[in-house]
Amino acid sequence: MNLEKLSINTATFKNLSLRHVVDLCVKNNIKAIGPWRDKIHEVGLKEASRIINASGLQVSGLCRGGFFVADNNHNWDDNKIAIEEAAELNAGCLVIVSGGMLANNKNLSQTHNYIADGLAKMTELGNEMGVPIALEPLHPMYAADRCSINSLKHAIDICEQIGEGIGVAIDAYHVWWDPDVDAQIKRAGELGKIYGYHVCDWLAPTTDMLLDRGLMGDGVIDLKSMTQKIESTGHNGFTEVEIFSKKLWQLPPDEMMEKVIERFKNEV
Amino acid sequence: MNLEKLSINTATFKNLSLRHVVDLCVKNNIKAIGPWRDKIHEVGLKEASRIINASGLQVSGLCRGGFFVADNNHNWDDNKIAIEEAAELNAGCLVIVSGGMLANNKNLSQTHNYIADGLAKMTELGNEMGVPIALEPLHPMYAADRCSINSLKHAIDICEQIGEGIGVAIDAYHVWWDPDVDAQIKRAGELGKIYGYHVCDWLAPTTDMLLDRGLMGDGVIDLKSMTQKIESTGHNGFTEVEIFSKKLWQLPPDEMMEKVIERFKNEV
Repeated sequence: MNLEKLSINTATFKNLSLRHVVDLCVKNNIKAIGPWRDKIHEVGLKEASRIINASGLQVSGLCRGGFFVADNNHNWDDNKIAIEEAAELNAGCLVIVSGGMLANNKNLSQTHNYIADGLAKMTELGNEMGVPIALEPLHPMYAADRCSINSLKHAIDICEQIGEGIGVAIDAYHVWWDPDVDAQIKRAGELGKIYGYHVCDWLAPTTDMLLDRGLMGDGVIDLKSMTQKIESTGHNGFTEVEIFSKKLWQLPPDEMMEKVIERFKNEV
Repeated sequence: MNLEKLSINTATFKNLSLRHVVDLCVKNNIKAIGPWRDKIHEVGLKEASRIINASGLQVSGLCRGGFFVADNNHNWDDNKIAIEEAAELNAGCLVIVSGGMLANNKNLSQTHNYIADGLAKMTELGNEMGVPIALEPLHPMYAADRCSINSLKHAIDICEQIGEGIGVAIDAYHVWWDPDVDAQIKRAGELGKIYGYHVCDWLAPTTDMLLDRGLMGDGVIDLKSMTQKIESTGHNGFTEVEIFSKKLWQLPPDEMMEKVIERFKNEV
């Protein structure tokens, strides 16, 4: 993939500060960054904004809002702040992970409805503040306690129902296994609802449900095919490399960045 | 659920011999068993058949055939034996786990086609031998290396395409997260293609991708709702309790069996 499209999600360099990741990006002539909010909070929003603006990097997306079931009010106190932060950082979108199931409630439909209500509220505020809301379906292995929206189809259904201002972030790691994924990418494209595209790889075997993601090309995902499907919808945004990996986090940052760039060029 | 419907899958008592599980079932007035093939092989097919026949237990299903990608011939040598074993044991079905992706091939559709071809061959022999073939979709976290058929919809699509003699084994653990599952249970019922129903529970958090399944009622799955959906299709077969759990395997067998029976009555 064309390097002009590369955005570095800060989760790929979990042990580095925002400033360190920004410097690494600039040094490597990268055009965009996808920060996590903890990295923003470490230095404070104003300083984070200053660091990023001074660097010339664009913010492809801010990770993340959501986790609606954290309280009885759609986690609104935190989600409101997340939208404000995304606005301040001029982020391309605010990425949403829905959170898991309602406490003491095994009725998944009720969780889905509660999440959809929270998303509608966020989209309303996002529209006011100029922040696109990007709903990211997560792999079904997170359905219980992290994200109960687990397929691209379901995410698009919700976005379509809500309307303007909300779309999907498509993370290859979460959706690659789904025989319906190509059709849903096409559908999201036709609706103008592809707000983000994230890549890494699924390792076989995977030894940890959270922190064993792979560098593009080291796993089983046909990333080139997925990229082609996404680009053929006319989607023209950044592609974030987001790799949660206890193993890769141990590499020297320069070495890791070199690998990321090489793989992005040749495997995505 | 009515105890008359309970079948004990031998994986629930992984450390016990076939004879030990059979005796435990008889002692507890259980009507059926779902043996894994390794437990059959430990004593040999003839002796296993003799033990089970003498006990009066029915065999709800034999676990398992499949793993089509193990060689270039749909793992046929082993799959043929699996069908013969299921016939000898008079099993209600032979459960199939498809196996993961073709080696060095990231094109999932090609894997799916290869699996479908293998299933067609098995169904043909199964029809000759009087063995129903039960395709079990596994959770998407196994898509790469254990089972590339990961939704009930996909499994039913394949069964419908092949025709007579193949249906689905619905394991709550693998399909509970899917917002489409109720509709697909109804569809499978209408097609007369529910060949098996397995239960355990999804723990939150889950600490191991293979061996951290829960006792019914200890997790998040709405098993009563799923059972009701399955029974309302007219399905009237056994329900297998199949719990892979390093933790529960440590319990004394009598204590574990008591829990299984209590939970089956009150949580399924």
